Amino acid sequence: MLDPQQHLQQLREAIDNTDSELVQILLKRRQLAAEVGVVKRQLGQPLYVPEREASMLVAKRKQAEQAGLSPDLIEDVLRRIIRESYQQQQAADVHLNDKTVVIVGGNGALGQLFVRLFSSAGAKVLILDKDDWQHAEHFCEQADLVLISVPIAHTLTVIEALPSLPPGCILADLTSVKRQPLNAMLAKHSGPVVGLHPMFGPKQVTLAKQLVVACHGRDEDQYQWLLASIERWGAHIKALTAAAHDQAMAFVQVLRHLSSFVYGSHLAAEQADLQQLLDLSSPIYRLELMMVGRLFAQDAELYADILLAEPNNIAMLRRYVQRFEMELKRLEQGCKDEFLQEFTRVREYFGEFAERFLSDSQRLLDTAGDSHQIS
Amino acid sequence: MLDPQQHLQQLREAIDNTDSELVQILLKRRQLAAEVGVVKRQLGQPLYVPEREASMLVAKRKQAEQAGLSPDLIEDVLRRIIRESYQQQQAADVHLNDKTVVIVGGNGALGQLFVRLFSSAGAKVLILDKDDWQHAEHFCEQADLVLISVPIAHTLTVIEALPSLPPGCILADLTSVKRQPLNAMLAKHSGPVVGLHPMFGPKQVTLAKQLVVACHGRDEDQYQWLLASIERWGAHIKALTAAAHDQAMAFVQVLRHLSSFVYGSHLAAEQADLQQLLDLSSPIYRLELMMVGRLFAQDAELYADILLAEPNNIAMLRRYVQRFEMELKRLEQGCKDEFLQEFTRVREYFGEFAERFLSDSQRLLDTAGDSHQIS
Repeated sequence: MLDPQQHLQQLREAIDNTDSELVQILLKRRQLAAEVGVVKRQLGQPLYVPEREASMLVAKRKQAEQAGLSPDLIEDVLRRIIRESYQQQQAADVHLNDKTVVIVGGNGALGQLFVRLFSSAGAKVLILDKDDWQHAEHFCEQADLVLISVPIAHTLTVIEALPSLPPGCILADLTSVKRQPLNAMLAKHSGPVVGLHPMFGPKQVTLAKQLVVACHGRDEDQYQWLLASIERWGAHIKALTAAAHDQAMAFVQVLRHLSSFVYGSHLAAEQADLQQLLDLSSPIYRLELMMVGRLFAQDAELYADILLAEPNNIAMLRRYVQRFEMELKRLEQGCKDEFLQEFTRVREYFGEFAERFLSDSQRLLDTAGDSHQIS
Repeated sequence: MLDPQQHLQQLREAIDNTDSELVQILLKRRQLAAEVGVVKRQLGQPLYVPEREASMLVAKRKQAEQAGLSPDLIEDVLRRIIRESYQQQQAADVHLNDKTVVIVGGNGALGQLFVRLFSSAGAKVLILDKDDWQHAEHFCEQADLVLISVPIAHTLTVIEALPSLPPGCILADLTSVKRQPLNAMLAKHSGPVVGLHPMFGPKQVTLAKQLVVACHGRDEDQYQWLLASIERWGAHIKALTAAAHDQAMAFVQVLRHLSSFVYGSHLAAEQADLQQLLDLSSPIYRLELMMVGRLFAQDAELYADILLAEPNNIAMLRRYVQRFEMELKRLEQGCKDEFLQEFTRVREYFGEFAERFLSDSQRLLDTAGDSHQIS
């Protein structure tokens, strides 16, 4: 029999060889996926077809199970590989070479992303920034689309300052609030108008699987080509009224940001030892801490503007603080029964979402655990 | 030249073949990892060696890069495969066959996990529950370890109700607060005492990479075998005073839970349309929503007990609410400059953690995006 130490060495070499085979397979698969991208463009097919991806994964899970391998393992590995494939397939897809697009704020982070997208689609892209406003009239008179991508606080001023646009030109914006900019655009321009909110950050490499909210302004038929391009880049479009959008964003954006901001500010004021907290964090607390801390690595102005944009939100935020105080009083008085009753009410409100969120987040926490570096 | 539709079909078949090869490689790697587990046990080596895993990943990243493959891709895929390996290596590792372990509350969720761990290590495990307390004396007089795993609200009562233990027997608990249970255990038993807080849920399959906090009570030498077993199962042990533990937990556990609870309660009271919020959520908001909703799929009693356990926390929570109100007033008055100043202060407090949290969470959000099902 082998000496265990030698045996271990042999096994590790065998694992290394297997991993080299793995690298080769991933390379081959990437090459094939890139070719699929080329053919799909020839056929004018979209990059991302949810049903096809889902049915493919079901088949692979079954295959893995029959081979005695964990279906979750093959699904997670394939999903990760597929993400890489989408990025590969993101090569030039020229379909807008008859369009001229003016991007106001095209040097900003999100502006640059859309400059890249429209350019690679063959459109003539003109960037208008605060330093070269003298070109505004000349640029806009040839535009098929004027896209506003400036900080929230400047959006209304910039829209008002625009020269008049050709009647068929689309006026659109990318602001993360929608009611006020949409009204301003409708007042400015009598042609096609649509408000867009890309629900992703400027660092996004591919639009595949991403969401863009579209708030109808005027002349839907005439801005269809813009929405079609966004879908062609892989994103999903959700149509919504500006009012419904802003109301939902008050919960998912304003309240979450404010809550994270105050939590960070509180930790700082209480002089909590961050390294200690991190050392003591299980994956879930680590994740919660990350979600707070990441805010402070980002653009302070952007957060300030989002929080200040809509004075109507204040009343809702005030009700949140009142509820927080009420719960705190309950805790102080040790009212466990009342806490349990409220817990039950909220559980009923979440319904089947609660279980779904638990299992979805567990999957994600497992991934977070994979890369947990013990400090 | 091929008809594009036929070409697409051929490429998809080629991808299917590649995926079948992938399944075979994953199977082979799993088999090798299982053998490594067997040999490691022969050698008495720990399951998880952080340095070895890290240096292996550095080597694989380099190899991928030389082959023209994304290093992040191979790292993510390997980390996911390695998680599976740890579960494989978790087979019987008999090293406690001379020990008798009494687990009080061994039928509870976390209790069952430790029953399984100690049993598979060869220990004689006796479960003591509220229904069979008549066995308490008989069980405890033969015990090498009495481990308390009951709901927080009952921990102190259960400790007081214990019969007297043999002088060398370890008394330990798994409660997620530590100061009061540790004091109660020290008062009860004059032999070795240690307070433990496993920083993971009862659904954990393997302890590899998990964290257990240990709060010293008495006779460290005599409870070393317990800590050694926990490390042998793959967990990392962090020694901390009970006071420091409870203070840190007030931030990472109590405040986060309360904050998520109030947020859920607020959404319910405001009758926010959950499906709408979910439809509108980018990966990061989806994640934030999941972190809140998952709470309500879990044990209400446990949350109530955690929030109510330590009356000392109320003052800190009250300061949090006051800070929230202060920020809200600033927003109401449109004080953007003050907001930006506070943002800068908190950013300085987070220091390099902010950037680290941003990039770590981005990686996780990318994974969340992989499985985003557009509804």
